[in-house]
Amino acid sequence: MQVYEIRAAFGLDHLTPAERPLPEPGPRQVRVRLHALSLNYRDLMMVQGTYNPRLVRPRVPVSDGVGTVVALGAGVQRVRVGDRVAGTFFQGWVDGDLDEAKARTDLGGTRDGLLAEEAVLEEDGVIAVPDHLSDAEAATLPCAALTAWNAVVETGRVAPGGTVLVQGMGGVSTFALLFAKRAGARVVVLSSSPERLDRARALGADEGVDYRREPEWDKRVRALTGGRGVDLVVEVGGAGTLPRSLRAVRMGGTIALIGVLAGAGQVDPLPAVMRQIRLAGIFVGSRAMFERMNAAIALHRLRPVLDRVFPFSQAVAALRHLESGSHFGKIVLALGPGA
Amino acid sequence: MQVYEIRAAFGLDHLTPAERPLPEPGPRQVRVRLHALSLNYRDLMMVQGTYNPRLVRPRVPVSDGVGTVVALGAGVQRVRVGDRVAGTFFQGWVDGDLDEAKARTDLGGTRDGLLAEEAVLEEDGVIAVPDHLSDAEAATLPCAALTAWNAVVETGRVAPGGTVLVQGMGGVSTFALLFAKRAGARVVVLSSSPERLDRARALGADEGVDYRREPEWDKRVRALTGGRGVDLVVEVGGAGTLPRSLRAVRMGGTIALIGVLAGAGQVDPLPAVMRQIRLAGIFVGSRAMFERMNAAIALHRLRPVLDRVFPFSQAVAALRHLESGSHFGKIVLALGPGA
Amino acid sequence: MQVYEIRAAFGLDHLTPAERPLPEPGPRQVRVRLHALSLNYRDLMMVQGTYNPRLVRPRVPVSDGVGTVVALGAGVQRVRVGDRVAGTFFQGWVDGDLDEAKARTDLGGTRDGLLAEEAVLEEDGVIAVPDHLSDAEAATLPCAALTAWNAVVETGRVAPGGTVLVQGMGGVSTFALLFAKRAGARVVVLSSSPERLDRARALGADEGVDYRREPEWDKRVRALTGGRGVDLVVEVGGAGTLPRSLRAVRMGGTIALIGVLAGAGQVDPLPAVMRQIRLAGIFVGSRAMFERMNAAIALHRLRPVLDRVFPFSQAVAALRHLESGSHFGKIVLALGPGA
Amino acid sequence: MQVYEIRAAFGLDHLTPAERPLPEPGPRQVRVRLHALSLNYRDLMMVQGTYNPRLVRPRVPVSDGVGTVVALGAGVQRVRVGDRVAGTFFQGWVDGDLDEAKARTDLGGTRDGLLAEEAVLEEDGVIAVPDHLSDAEAATLPCAALTAWNAVVETGRVAPGGTVLVQGMGGVSTFALLFAKRAGARVVVLSSSPERLDRARALGADEGVDYRREPEWDKRVRALTGGRGVDLVVEVGGAGTLPRSLRAVRMGGTIALIGVLAGAGQVDPLPAVMRQIRLAGIFVGSRAMFERMNAAIALHRLRPVLDRVFPFSQAVAALRHLESGSHFGKIVLALGPGA
Repeated sequence: MQVYEIRAAFGLDHLTPAERPLPEPGPRQVRVRLHALSLNYRDLMMVQGTYNPRLVRPRVPVSDGVGTVVALGAGVQRVRVGDRVAGTFFQGWVDGDLDEAKARTDLGGTRDGLLAEEAVLEEDGVIAVPDHLSDAEAATLPCAALTAWNAVVETGRVAPGGTVLVQGMGGVSTFALLFAKRAGARVVVLSSSPERLDRARALGADEGVDYRREPEWDKRVRALTGGRGVDLVVEVGGAGTLPRSLRAVRMGGTIALIGVLAGAGQVDPLPAVMRQIRLAGIFVGSRAMFERMNAAIALHRLRPVLDRVFPFSQAVAALRHLESGSHFGKIVLALGPGA
Repeated sequence: MQVYEIRAAFGLDHLTPAERPLPEPGPRQVRVRLHALSLNYRDLMMVQGTYNPRLVRPRVPVSDGVGTVVALGAGVQRVRVGDRVAGTFFQGWVDGDLDEAKARTDLGGTRDGLLAEEAVLEEDGVIAVPDHLSDAEAATLPCAALTAWNAVVETGRVAPGGTVLVQGMGGVSTFALLFAKRAGARVVVLSSSPERLDRARALGADEGVDYRREPEWDKRVRALTGGRGVDLVVEVGGAGTLPRSLRAVRMGGTIALIGVLAGAGQVDPLPAVMRQIRLAGIFVGSRAMFERMNAAIALHRLRPVLDRVFPFSQAVAALRHLESGSHFGKIVLALGPGA
Repeated sequence: MQVYEIRAAFGLDHLTPAERPLPEPGPRQVRVRLHALSLNYRDLMMVQGTYNPRLVRPRVPVSDGVGTVVALGAGVQRVRVGDRVAGTFFQGWVDGDLDEAKARTDLGGTRDGLLAEEAVLEEDGVIAVPDHLSDAEAATLPCAALTAWNAVVETGRVAPGGTVLVQGMGGVSTFALLFAKRAGARVVVLSSSPERLDRARALGADEGVDYRREPEWDKRVRALTGGRGVDLVVEVGGAGTLPRSLRAVRMGGTIALIGVLAGAGQVDPLPAVMRQIRLAGIFVGSRAMFERMNAAIALHRLRPVLDRVFPFSQAVAALRHLESGSHFGKIVLALGPGA
Repeated sequence: MQVYEIRAAFGLDHLTPAERPLPEPGPRQVRVRLHALSLNYRDLMMVQGTYNPRLVRPRVPVSDGVGTVVALGAGVQRVRVGDRVAGTFFQGWVDGDLDEAKARTDLGGTRDGLLAEEAVLEEDGVIAVPDHLSDAEAATLPCAALTAWNAVVETGRVAPGGTVLVQGMGGVSTFALLFAKRAGARVVVLSSSPERLDRARALGADEGVDYRREPEWDKRVRALTGGRGVDLVVEVGGAGTLPRSLRAVRMGGTIALIGVLAGAGQVDPLPAVMRQIRLAGIFVGSRAMFERMNAAIALHRLRPVLDRVFPFSQAVAALRHLESGSHFGKIVLALGPGA
C-alpha cells in the first residue's frame, strides 16, 4: 500500500511517497481502508518540523481520516468488517481525563498517522460516524470538530442564552460556531475579513467584529454584551489575542485555550486573577466526547464546511493550500475508487 | 387596595376578597403595583388546604406576578420606581444552594403572595423581565418557567444531542420542552391526548408517546433512543410515573423530580441503584438562575404559551378553570387599567 | 483447577466444588492465581438466587479477589507476569460513566467470578493494590471499598467540615467512615448496637446514634448538626431507612443510594422535591476511581477491617458466617500455600 | 473614632491618623467595634499606591478585621448587637459567582476598610467566626484563609490521596497547607529556606523542596509524584513561578492563580494547552464559602499561625514589618481595652 513519510529532512518538499506492506492488525486492533482524510494545521507543522523537531522518523503524518474496516485482529468485539469508522486522534483516550499514557497515542505524531491507503488502529480507537455525512465530511471530525466540541460543550458548558466569542473562521472556530448555536448561545465572531464575517453570519453568527477596523476589539465585544463580557472565549490566537480575550470575557468566565495555531508567546496572567477567570487548555478530546458530539451532529444534521477536496496523489499540494491560509472550511484528501 | 385572602376555612368557596391598606416597603423593600398574575397548581392546593393544612391565615395566595415598582423603602439600590419586575418565588433565594432560611421566604405560602393589587417585595426579590414579553406572558416565569429551567439547564445540564422526556403539556413541561429544544436536545413528549401531542410537536417536540395507547411507555421511550433511554426525565407525575421513568432513563442518567403535581405515593428506589441513576429534587430556583433564564428567553424571543386571561375580579373562576385541567398553557389574571 | 459453581439449584447447600481446566487468557486478557477473596452480601444473594433468579448457570460466584498474574494473552501491555493485582468488579468499566455494555461485565454475576483457584480477567480489568496491604486486606477493595469511595468522594464530594451519616458498620459503611474522616468530614454513625458504636468511634466516628434507643433517629441526627441535617447520607438500608434519611439530610444535600443490602421497598419521593435533595444511585465504580482510592489508601496507610479469614475449602461456611450477620468487618477466603 | 487614611500622597510615611465621627449604619447595615485586624500584602500595596494608583482618597485601608456588633440599622435580621463577627472582603458577594457589581464592594479598596476603631458593614457582609479562635486569630480569616480555602477546596476540589504544591509559607500558602492536609491530600511545600520548610513540616507538610538548592524544582516535584505531577498548584508566585508550575502539575491538573503577590509578568500559555491544564483565577471568595470554611476550621480546631501582634497605634510599624518579609504567619493589629 502507498503512504507518505516524513523522513530525515523536514519540509513539504521532503514529504515522500513510499510503498509499505499491508500491516496486520494485532490483538484488539483493526485495519481500515481509508476513503477520506482531512488536514489540520498540526499536520502541516509536523511535516515542517515545527511541531516536534525531535519527531521519530520515518513517520506517516495526518491524524484525521475515515474508512472501512477491512480486517480484524484477535479478540475484536466492538467493530465488524465493513463498518465505516473514523480514527480517534488519541488512540488510547476512551473516556475520563487525559493522562501521559493516553497522550502518547496521538496519530500522525507519536504513532504513524493516516496519510496512507490503509492503517491499523486500535479497536478502541475507531468510532462510527453519522450516516448523513459523506466520507469527506466525516473525515473532518476527529481533530477540529472534537476540539471545538470539547471547548464549547464539555469544558465551556455553554447553555441557552450564553455568549461565546470565536476567533476567525478556521476549522475549530467554524465548528465552535455551529456547536455554540446549537447549544442556544449568542455567538460573536472576530475576523479581519468582512467576507468571512458574512459567511459566519450565514452559518448562524449573531455578531461579527472586524478587528482590523476595531483593533480594540475587546471593547466592542463587551459593548455587545451589555458591558459584561462573554461567558466563553474559544481562544485560537494564543499569545497574540489572549490579552484582549482576558478583557473580553466576563468576570468568572472561561477561556478555552486551543493549541498549535496559538503558537508560543508571552501573556500576563494577572488579569485572570483579578477577574476570577478560568483558562482551560483543550487538547482534542476523548472517544466518549466524540460519541456525544456525533449524537449532536446527527440530530441537527450538521454539515462540516468543506473548502476543497484533493486526490490522495496531491497530498503535498493540499498541504500547500493549507499553508497559504486562503481556505474557508476544511481541506480534504480523497482515496479509493470514488476519489 | 384589594386582595384575596385564604381565611379560616379552606376551599375555593372561601377565598375571600378583602380590602387592606397600602403596605409600606421597609428597608431594602419595594412596593409593586401588579399588572398580571399567573396561576400554578400549588396556588390551587394552597387555597384548598391540601398543600399545607397548617397554613398561617389569613394568607394572600399566588406566587407569580409582574408589575411596576411604585415605592421604594430605605436604602434600595438595585431597583427604581417605574421598573417593570416580576417577584421571585423565594424572596430570599438570590444565588447558591437553597437552605432552610431561604426556603421560608416563598410567596403565597410562608409569606403573603400576589393575589392583590399591590404587594411589598424584597429589593433582592424582584427581577426585570424580558422586554418582548407582555405582562401576562412575563407573569408565567417565576414558578413554572424557572422550575423547568432549573430542571433542564441548571440541574439536567442538557447539551446538544442529548435526549429529554417531558410528561404532559402542563406549565412546567411546556417550558421544559422549549428550553430543551433551545439547548439542542431531542425531546420526547408523553401525553394521553393526541391533540396535545400535536401541539407539542408544533412547539418543537421530536417525538410523542401516547401513554393510553402505549401503557408500557417506558419501552417505547427506550426504543426511540436506540434502547439506551433518555439522558433526562423531567418527572412531574410523581409516584404514578416514577417507576417507569426509572426504566425510561439511561443508565447514569438524571430524573428531575418536580413537586406538588407529583403528589404523594410510594416508589421502589432499588432500580436507581442498579442503574446508577441520579434523582434530583427541583424546587423552583434562585434569582441567579432566573437571570440566566431571562437571557435565554430574550435571545430566542421565547413566548410562554397562554391558555386564557381572566380579570382579577374573577380569580376564583380562574382557579376553577385550573382545577378543571382542561387548559393548555398558563392561566393568567390581569389587573389595572389595561385589564 | 478448583472452583465453586452455582448450578441448577440455588442455595448454600447447592454451591458445588468442581474441577475445571486452567483457562487460557485471550487477547489482552491475563490469568491470575488467586491468593485471597472477600465476600459481599451480593455474593450470598447470588448463591441463594435472590439477586438474579435468572442467573445463567453454572456460574462461579464472588466478585472480589487478589492474586498474582501468571499468564498473559496476546497483546497485553499494562500488566506483567508476577504483578499483584485485584480484579475490578466491572471488568469493562475503566473510566467515565457506567453504561449498559460496561454494566454487563460484572464478575460473579454476568461473568464467572473469582471463587476459583485461578481466573482469566481483562487486561483492563485488573489493578495494582497498595503495597502495605496484605492479600486478605487488599481483597476487600473491589466492591465494598470502591462503593464507599464512590459514594463519599466521587459522588458525595465530601469536603473538610462537611457532615456524613453512615448506617451500621457493614463493609461499605466501615469504608465510608474511613474515607469520610480522611476527607475531613464529621461522621455520625447509626447502629443498633452500643458495642458497634464504640468500635465505630475507635475508627474515628465523631458521633454514634443508637436507633433502638432513638427510633426517631433523624431528629437526633438533625440535632447533632445544629438542626440543619447532614450533607451526605450513605444509605445502605434502602426502603426501610430512606424515609428518615430524607429528613436527616440537609436541604440541598445528597443521599448516596447503595444497593443490594437495601432490598426492595416503597418510598415516597415527595420530600426529596420539597427539600431539593439529590439521590444518587451508586453501583460500585470505575477503575479510574479505584486508582484514586488506592492513592488515598496508600497515602493514609488505611487498613480494611477484617472479621475472619476462612480457607478456600470452607467457602460455604464463610458464606454462612456472612449470612448470620454477626461479623464486624470483612470476611475473607484465603487460597494457596500460605492459606 | 480614630482611623488611618490614605490621603493624596501614597506611601507608608503618608498613612495618616485621623478622627472621624462614629458612622451610622444605614438600612440593613451594622456598626462593628473592631478588636483585631490582620494585614495582607494587598493592604501594603494599597497604601503604597501600587495596587491601584487611581484609588479614591481619602481611603481607610485594610480588609480584614473582627469585632463586636454595636449598632443596627433599620431592618437588620441576620445579626444582633453583641455578636462577634468578621467582615467579608467583598461586602456584596454572598454566594454564587463573582460579578462586576459584587467585585466593587471590596473593603479597604473600593470602600473604606477596617483600619479604624469602628466600621459600618452590610448586614450581609458580616459573618460569625469560630468560637475557639481568639479575635487576633479570627481576624486572619477574611482574605488569606478564604483565598486558600477557595483555591484548595472550592476550586481545587482536593480529595483524599490528591497531591498539592504550595509555594512559600506566606499567609495564603500556610492556610492552603492546613486545608489541603485536612482534605486528605499529600502536600509538597516549596521554599528557599530550610527553616521554613521545617516549620511547614511541623504544620503537616509531607515534602519540602528548597528551590535555591533545586532551581529546577518542577523536576523534583514530578519525581516526588511518581513522574506524574501534582493535582493542584496553589500558585502565589505569578509570572516568576508559573512556567515551572505548568510543568509541575499533572496533565489535566489545576493551577489556582492567586493574585497580588503574583505581580505582573509574562508567561507562555502554550504548555497549558498541550497538557490540558486548567488555570483558575482566585479572588478571595464568597460568604457562603466562608461559612463552609468556618465549619472546617471549627471541626478541626485549626488555628491560624500568627507572627506578631501590634497595637493599633503602631499600624505603620506593623505594615513595615509586613514589608520586610521577615514574618512567618500573619501580622495582627489589636484594638480596644484588651489590646
